[in-house]
Amino acid sequence: MRIAVVNGPNLNLLGQREPEIYGRATLADIESMTRAAAAELGAEVEFFQSNGEGELIDYVQAAAGRVAGFVVNAGGYSHTSVALLDALAGVGRPYIEVHLSNLNAREPFRQRSLLAARARGVVMGFGADGYSLAIRGLIRVLGEARPAGRES
Amino acid sequence: MRIAVVNGPNLNLLGQREPEIYGRATLADIESMTRAAAAELGAEVEFFQSNGEGELIDYVQAAAGRVAGFVVNAGGYSHTSVALLDALAGVGRPYIEVHLSNLNAREPFRQRSLLAARARGVVMGFGADGYSLAIRGLIRVLGEARPAGRES
Amino acid sequence: MRIAVVNGPNLNLLGQREPEIYGRATLADIESMTRAAAAELGAEVEFFQSNGEGELIDYVQAAAGRVAGFVVNAGGYSHTSVALLDALAGVGRPYIEVHLSNLNAREPFRQRSLLAARARGVVMGFGADGYSLAIRGLIRVLGEARPAGRES
Amino acid sequence: MRIAVVNGPNLNLLGQREPEIYGRATLADIESMTRAAAAELGAEVEFFQSNGEGELIDYVQAAAGRVAGFVVNAGGYSHTSVALLDALAGVGRPYIEVHLSNLNAREPFRQRSLLAARARGVVMGFGADGYSLAIRGLIRVLGEARPAGRES
Amino acid sequence: MRIAVVNGPNLNLLGQREPEIYGRATLADIESMTRAAAAELGAEVEFFQSNGEGELIDYVQAAAGRVAGFVVNAGGYSHTSVALLDALAGVGRPYIEVHLSNLNAREPFRQRSLLAARARGVVMGFGADGYSLAIRGLIRVLGEARPAGRES
Amino acid sequence: MRIAVVNGPNLNLLGQREPEIYGRATLADIESMTRAAAAELGAEVEFFQSNGEGELIDYVQAAAGRVAGFVVNAGGYSHTSVALLDALAGVGRPYIEVHLSNLNAREPFRQRSLLAARARGVVMGFGADGYSLAIRGLIRVLGEARPAGRES
Amino acid sequence: MRIAVVNGPNLNLLGQREPEIYGRATLADIESMTRAAAAELGAEVEFFQSNGEGELIDYVQAAAGRVAGFVVNAGGYSHTSVALLDALAGVGRPYIEVHLSNLNAREPFRQRSLLAARARGVVMGFGADGYSLAIRGLIRVLGEARPAGRES
Amino acid sequence: MRIAVVNGPNLNLLGQREPEIYGRATLADIESMTRAAAAELGAEVEFFQSNGEGELIDYVQAAAGRVAGFVVNAGGYSHTSVALLDALAGVGRPYIEVHLSNLNAREPFRQRSLLAARARGVVMGFGADGYSLAIRGLIRVLGEARPAGRES
Amino acid sequence: MRIAVVNGPNLNLLGQREPEIYGRATLADIESMTRAAAAELGAEVEFFQSNGEGELIDYVQAAAGRVAGFVVNAGGYSHTSVALLDALAGVGRPYIEVHLSNLNAREPFRQRSLLAARARGVVMGFGADGYSLAIRGLIRVLGEARPAGRES
Amino acid sequence: MRIAVVNGPNLNLLGQREPEIYGRATLADIESMTRAAAAELGAEVEFFQSNGEGELIDYVQAAAGRVAGFVVNAGGYSHTSVALLDALAGVGRPYIEVHLSNLNAREPFRQRSLLAARARGVVMGFGADGYSLAIRGLIRVLGEARPAGRES
Amino acid sequence: MRIAVVNGPNLNLLGQREPEIYGRATLADIESMTRAAAAELGAEVEFFQSNGEGELIDYVQAAAGRVAGFVVNAGGYSHTSVALLDALAGVGRPYIEVHLSNLNAREPFRQRSLLAARARGVVMGFGADGYSLAIRGLIRVLGEARPAGRES
Amino acid sequence: MRIAVVNGPNLNLLGQREPEIYGRATLADIESMTRAAAAELGAEVEFFQSNGEGELIDYVQAAAGRVAGFVVNAGGYSHTSVALLDALAGVGRPYIEVHLSNLNAREPFRQRSLLAARARGVVMGFGADGYSLAIRGLIRVLGEARPAGRES
Repeated sequence: MRIAVVNGPNLNLLGQREPEIYGRATLADIESMTRAAAAELGAEVEFFQSNGEGELIDYVQAAAGRVAGFVVNAGGYSHTSVALLDALAGVGRPYIEVHLSNLNAREPFRQRSLLAARARGVVMGFGADGYSLAIRGLIRVLGEARPAGRES
Repeated sequence: MRIAVVNGPNLNLLGQREPEIYGRATLADIESMTRAAAAELGAEVEFFQSNGEGELIDYVQAAAGRVAGFVVNAGGYSHTSVALLDALAGVGRPYIEVHLSNLNAREPFRQRSLLAARARGVVMGFGADGYSLAIRGLIRVLGEARPAGRES
Repeated sequence: MRIAVVNGPNLNLLGQREPEIYGRATLADIESMTRAAAAELGAEVEFFQSNGEGELIDYVQAAAGRVAGFVVNAGGYSHTSVALLDALAGVGRPYIEVHLSNLNAREPFRQRSLLAARARGVVMGFGADGYSLAIRGLIRVLGEARPAGRES
Repeated sequence: MRIAVVNGPNLNLLGQREPEIYGRATLADIESMTRAAAAELGAEVEFFQSNGEGELIDYVQAAAGRVAGFVVNAGGYSHTSVALLDALAGVGRPYIEVHLSNLNAREPFRQRSLLAARARGVVMGFGADGYSLAIRGLIRVLGEARPAGRES
Repeated sequence: MRIAVVNGPNLNLLGQREPEIYGRATLADIESMTRAAAAELGAEVEFFQSNGEGELIDYVQAAAGRVAGFVVNAGGYSHTSVALLDALAGVGRPYIEVHLSNLNAREPFRQRSLLAARARGVVMGFGADGYSLAIRGLIRVLGEARPAGRES
Repeated sequence: MRIAVVNGPNLNLLGQREPEIYGRATLADIESMTRAAAAELGAEVEFFQSNGEGELIDYVQAAAGRVAGFVVNAGGYSHTSVALLDALAGVGRPYIEVHLSNLNAREPFRQRSLLAARARGVVMGFGADGYSLAIRGLIRVLGEARPAGRES
Repeated sequence: MRIAVVNGPNLNLLGQREPEIYGRATLADIESMTRAAAAELGAEVEFFQSNGEGELIDYVQAAAGRVAGFVVNAGGYSHTSVALLDALAGVGRPYIEVHLSNLNAREPFRQRSLLAARARGVVMGFGADGYSLAIRGLIRVLGEARPAGRES
Repeated sequence: MRIAVVNGPNLNLLGQREPEIYGRATLADIESMTRAAAAELGAEVEFFQSNGEGELIDYVQAAAGRVAGFVVNAGGYSHTSVALLDALAGVGRPYIEVHLSNLNAREPFRQRSLLAARARGVVMGFGADGYSLAIRGLIRVLGEARPAGRES
Repeated sequence: MRIAVVNGPNLNLLGQREPEIYGRATLADIESMTRAAAAELGAEVEFFQSNGEGELIDYVQAAAGRVAGFVVNAGGYSHTSVALLDALAGVGRPYIEVHLSNLNAREPFRQRSLLAARARGVVMGFGADGYSLAIRGLIRVLGEARPAGRES
Repeated sequence: MRIAVVNGPNLNLLGQREPEIYGRATLADIESMTRAAAAELGAEVEFFQSNGEGELIDYVQAAAGRVAGFVVNAGGYSHTSVALLDALAGVGRPYIEVHLSNLNAREPFRQRSLLAARARGVVMGFGADGYSLAIRGLIRVLGEARPAGRES
Repeated sequence: MRIAVVNGPNLNLLGQREPEIYGRATLADIESMTRAAAAELGAEVEFFQSNGEGELIDYVQAAAGRVAGFVVNAGGYSHTSVALLDALAGVGRPYIEVHLSNLNAREPFRQRSLLAARARGVVMGFGADGYSLAIRGLIRVLGEARPAGRES
Repeated sequence: MRIAVVNGPNLNLLGQREPEIYGRATLADIESMTRAAAAELGAEVEFFQSNGEGELIDYVQAAAGRVAGFVVNAGGYSHTSVALLDALAGVGRPYIEVHLSNLNAREPFRQRSLLAARARGVVMGFGADGYSLAIRGLIRVLGEARPAGRES
C-alpha cells in the first residue's frame, strides 16, 4: 500500500528556525518518522512539499494513479484553496487532513479549512506525531469494507 | 499512566441499532479496543458515559485527581456546553477531542465544537478507531517536555 | 398504539401560578385531556416531565422500545439541545413538536427550535388543546403508508 | 360559524401531478375533507385559491366580514408577502397558518414565514390532514374567552 | 419542439424609452429574433409577458402541458418570487434563466436570483442576443440523454 | 478575429474519469467543439489550461495583445482569485465567464464568482456546449457598437 | 401640472376600521385633502389604489406619459417589490415616497423600503397630512432647475 | 407657538462652497425661508447650529422649556449619537427629522439614523425646502388630538 | 427576609485550585462572607450549588416559595440555558446576576448572558465581594415601592 | 482615598422630569447619597457631569492625577465613544461602570458598552443605589493586593 | 505651502506616561520633528490638538482657508465620527490619515477608520516618524498634476 | 543595510497601459526611484516581481537570509493569501505593506488586507512615491531599539 503525504507552503521551513516555538523536527525529520511509522504498518510513503498552489494540484493529480490515499497538510492553502479541494475530491482517493497545531485555538481565519468537509478524517494538535497518527488512521480507513460510524 | 475516556449523550446507543449506518461497534466494544490500545502503550483507561451534562461535569471534576489526561467525545454537548468546557479547561489536564464522524461534513450546527479551542488535539472521522488514535496522541503529548509545534 | 408525551423544563409549573397569563390548565389537566383524546382515537399515552436534559434523553431512549411515536414539548431545551435532538432523531420513531404558544410571536431566541427540522410535524399556539391536536396528527402520520405531501 | 380557507400559488396543482411525491389528494379532495371535518364540528367552510398576491388580499378583505377566522396556506407568498400579512393582521380575525410539509426541514428561504408571527397558531407537516387539524384548532381558539397559555 | 419564453415585469417597456441606455430592441424585436433563431434550429416559440406575478404563474402552469421547456426572464420577480420558483420547478420542465444585463455588475439585491438554483442553465449579459443563446442552449439540453457535466 | 479560451485548475481531468458523472467530453473534445463553433462564425481560438494561478495570469497578460476577447472557465479560482480578476479586468479585453454546471445549484462557496462582476457575460449549466454558446455570445458582443441593454 | 398618487395594498381599508388606531380619514378623505392641497398649488391629481403588484406596475407605466411625477405609498410592497422599484425608476419621472407612519419606529422588516433609494424625497409619520406635504415637496422639486442640495 | 430648529455639524458651511453641488442656499437663507414659512402658519422659530455634540444636547435641554417641538437636522451626528437621541427623546417634545438629501441614496453608513426611530416624522430629499415642509408637518402634528395613523 | 444564592457549574472548584489565578476564596468562604453581609442587613441567606442544569431549575422552583429574591451566578449556563432563564423569570421573584469576573473582558461567547435581560440588576468584576454587593443591591430593590430609574 | 464620579450626557436632567418613570432622585441627590456612602467607607468623592464628550475626556485626564479610581456612568457615550474609552484606559486608574437601569433589558444598541471591556467591574439596574454599590466595590478593588477571581 | 496637522483625543497625553509602552516622544516632540521635516521640504506646519469632536470640526473648517492640506490623527474619533469625516471631505483639501500604531493589529473596533475612505493617503505603524512621512507624502500629492496611480 | 521590495501579480503591467489612469511610472521606474531613495538613506534594494503566489513565497523565504526587512505590494494576493502572510510572518523580518492606491476607497473585497495585521507599518495612496516612503519608514523602524508607540 502506497500513501502520498502532501505538504503545502512554508512547511519547508520547519525546524530550521525558532525551534523553541515550532519544535526541532524539520520536515525531513517528519518525513523519516512518517516513513518509519508507515513501514511498521506495511505501507510505503511518498513525500511532497511545494509553496505553489498549482504545483500541489499537479502533484495530487499525478500521484492519484499510484497511491491508495493522501495525508494532507496544506498549510495556508487549507483556508483559501477551492482549487486544491477540487483536486483532492476529484481524484477519488480518501484523504486525511493533518495540522501540527490545533487550528481551533488560532486566529479566526485559520479555524475553518476548506479541505475539511471532504476529508475522510482530521488529526490536529499533535505536532510532528500527527503525521504518524494520520497514516495509521488512513490505513484503517482503507482497510474497512463499510464507511465508518457517522454518529458523533 | 491513567487516562479517562469521557462519552456524552446518546453514545450508549452505539452498535445496538442500525449497524449498517453507525457500525457494529457498541460502546462496550470501543471500551475494549481502547483499553487494549492503551495497555499496549503502557496506560490504563477508565471509561465513562452519561446523558447528563451535570453528571459529565461531576465526573470530570472527580476524575481529574487520578488521571493524567482526558479523551472526550461529548456528543451533542460538544456544540452547546460552555459548562463542560469550563470543567475540562478548569481541572488543568490536557484533553483530546474525538468524534466518530468528521463533523465538517455534517450539519452547520455540528461544525463548531465549543470544546475544541481548549483541546490539546482533535481526532475525527475514524469511527471507533479514533479512540485508539486519540489515546496514542494523548500519551505522546503527555510525554513531551515542550509544547508541540504551533505552525500549521 | 402507545404514544409518549415528553415535557421539558418548567412545564411542571403550568396552571399553579398566574393562571390569568398561562391558563388554568395544569400539566395534570393537560395529561387528562391528552389521555382522553388519545383513548377516543384508540391510542394509549404515557406522560413524562423533567427539568433535566439528561433525564429527558434517558427517557426518550428507554421509551422508544415501547411506543410508536412521541409528542414533545421540550420547553427551553427546544432552542438549545443538540443532545435531545440526537436522542429523538436517533431512536427512529416519528415525533411531533408541540408548543403552547406560537413561538414566532416571541423573543428571537425562541423563534428557532433545534428539534423542528427532524420533527414529522409541528403544532403551536393552541395552548393545552395543542397536545390533543398533536396526538391526532401523530396517529394519522403513523397510519399512512407513504410519506405525506411535501409541497407547501 | 363560518371559516375561510385560503390557498396561495401553485396549490391548484396538487395531486394532479407526481402523486408519488406530493400525495394523491387534489385541492378538491382537501376541500372535501376539510368541509367534512368542519361540518362534524358544526362549522361551515368557504374555500379559495389564487396564484395572485393581490387577489388573495382582495379575498381576505372581502371574506373578513362574513367569517369568524381564517385557515391560510399561502404557499410561496408565506415567505415574501408583507402585503398579505398586512391584510390578514388588518382585518382583525384570528388565522391559523397551515403547511402540508414541515417547513423546518426544507430550504433555508422556506424556514421563515412572514405570516407566522401574527398567526394565532401554526400546523405543519401533516399533509392534507393538516387542514382538518387547523380547522379543529381554530374552532377551539374561537371558542375560548381568554387568550391561550403563552408559556412554551 | 415548442418552447415558452416568459417575460416578467417592465420588459414590455424595452426599446421604447432611453434607447441609448437599454438598446433599441423592443420586446417585439426580441420576439422576432428569438422566433427566427428557434425556427432555424427547428423549434417553435410562444412568447408571453406580464407585469403580474400571479399571471406569470398562471401562464407557466398552463403552458407546461404544451411546451418542452422554458426560457425565463422574470425581471424584478427573479429576486423576490418564491411562488414563481415553485411554479417553474413544479411543472417539471427544464428552464433557462436569461437576463439582458450581467446581474453580477448591478446592485447587491439584484445579484441573487431565487430562480437560478433550480434553472438548468443561466445566460446573462448579452442583451437581446441572450434570448437566442438561451434557446440554443435549451434545445441542446432537451436533446441530451444524460445530465450535463457537473464540474465547474 | 482571435479569441482565447482560458481553463483553470482540474479542468485537464475532464472526461478521463467518472464519465457517468462529468460527461464523456475531455478537454480536448471541448477544444475541438469550440474551435469548430468558432470557425463556423469566422473566428479563431487559442486554448489554454493550467492548474497554476500565476501561470493563468501570465497567459492572460501575454495573450491580451493578440486576441479580441476571452472565454474563461477559471474552475476553483473563480471563487478566490482577486489576482486573476485584476489580470482579466486590467488587460482591457471583454471576457465571458463560462461554467459547465449551474453554480447556483452547488455548495454556497461556489455560488459567488469573483470574476463575474467584471465579465461581459456569463453562461453556465450547459456542460461542454457552454463554450460554444460563450464564443457565439462573445462574437456578438465584440461586433456591437454600443453597450448591450442594461435592464434585466 | 398633473401628479399621480399611487396607493398600494390594504390602503383601501383606511378609516373604515379601528379608527382609534388608524385615524378616521378614509382613503377617499385623503384623496379629497390631497386634491385640495394640489389645487391650491396649481396642480391636478389622479389617485389610484390597488392590492395587486402587477396592477400597480401597469398603472405606473400607463400614467407616466401624462403626469410630471408620482407620490407613492406602496404599503407592504415598499419592502418587497423590486418590480415596482423598476417601474418607478424606469419611467423617468421623479417620485416622492410617503408613509402614514414613521417606518423607523415599526418592525425591522418595515424599516427598509426598496423604493427609497431611487425616490427624490421621503415624507413619513404625518398621517394623512403626509400626502399634502409630499405634493408640496414634489411640486418644488419639479420646479427647480438644478438637483437639490446633497449634504445632510 | 414656538419651534426650535436644530442644525448639527458642518451645516454652517452650506452655500458658501461648491454651490453647484450643495445649492446656493446658505444656512442663513434656510433660516429666513423657514422663519417665513413658520410665520405664515402662525409660528415662531428659533434657529441654532453647532459643530459640538455636547452643545447640541445643551441646547435641546435648554430650549425644551420654551418650545412646542423641534425640527432637527443633526448632520453627521444623526448616525452616531445615542446621546443626542437621549436628549431629544428625554425632553418630551415631538421632533421632526429633516435632511437636505435623501439619505437612502447615499453611503451605507448614512442610511440609518439613530434619531429616526423616536422622531414623530421624517422629511428628506427636498433640499432647503425640506425645512419648511418639516415646520408645516410639525405644526399639524402639534395640533392633533390623537396620534396620527399608524398603518403604512 | 430570606434570599437564595444560586451557584452553577464548576463554582464548587473555587479556591481549591490555582489560587494565584482564581483567588483563595472557596465557595464556602464566599458563603460565609455572603451570610455575614446579609445578616448585617437583616436578611437570611440559603446557598446552593450544582453542576446540573435540571437540578438548578428544580432548586429555583422549590426555593421560590420561601425566598424574596435570588442572587444567581449560573457559571457556564449563563450563556446557554433558556430553561434556567424560564425558571428564574417564571417564579416571579426578582433576581440579581453576579459574576466574579467582568465578562465583557473575556471570550466573545461569555460576553452575552441569556439571564441578563430579565435580571433586576447585574454586578460583575468584583470577585468574591460581588456576592455581598449583589445581596445589598437586591435588598434595596426589594425595599422600594416603585421600579428604579430606567435612564442610563 | 479620593474617587471621581463621572456622569455623561443627559444625566443632569434626572429627577426633574417624569419622576414616575425615572425616579425622584436628582443628580444632586445621587451626589449626596454617593458622598455619604463614600464617607462612611472613608473615601472622598468628586462629582462631575457634562454633556460634552471632549469635556468628559478633559476631566478624566485632569482628575487622574488626584484620584485613586473612577465610577463612570457615561450615558449615551457608553455605546459610542472610543475616545472616552481611550481616556479611561489610558490614565491607568481602575474604573467601575455604573448604569441606573439594566442595559440588557433595553434597545439592542444599548446592550453593548464600549467602556465595559476595560472596566474593573460593572454595576447596573439598581437605580440611584448603584452609585453607592459601585463606590463600595471600587474601594474593595483598590484595597486588594492581587487581581480578583477571574472565573465566572 | 502651509499644512495643518490635526490631533484628536488623548494624543495630548503622549510621552508623559508609560514611555516604555508609548514611546518617549511627547506631542510637543512630534510637533518639533514634524515642523523640522516640513521646513526641510519647504513647507510650514500649524499644529492643533483637542479632545472635543466639535472643536476639531471647528478647527478643520477654520484652517481650510489657509492651508493646502491636512495630516490627521483623529485618535478614537477615527472610528466613530461621521461629522469629522464630513468636515474633512467637505472643505475640499486633500488629507493624509496617520496613526502611530498599525491599527490592523489592534482590537476589531479600531481596524476600520471612517476617515480612511476619503483620505488621499494613509500612513500607520511608524510611531512618531509617521507624521514626517505623512507630511512628505502630502507634499508630493499636492505637487502632482494628475491623480496618483490607482492600481493596487 | 539591504531591503527586499516584493511585488505581486499584475504589477508588471504598470505604466505600459492606460497611463492616464494608472500613471506613467512603470515598475522599472518605481524600481529606479526606490533604489535612489534607498541609496540616499544608505540602504541597498533588491527588487522582485512575480504573478505566482508560490514564487513570491519562495522568494520571501530565500531573501530573508540576506535582507533586514521587506517592502511588500502583494497586489491581489494581499486580500486572499494566508500562505504569503505565513511566509512574511514566519521569516522573522519586519515588513511594510505598500499600495499605490488607498484601498479604503475601493471595492469592499479590497478593503481588507490579510497581510496588514502582521505588518510593521502600512503606506497607501501615494502612487509610486509610496515605495520611497515605505523604504524611509522601514529604515527608521529597523533603527529603533524599542517597539514604536502603540497608541493611535
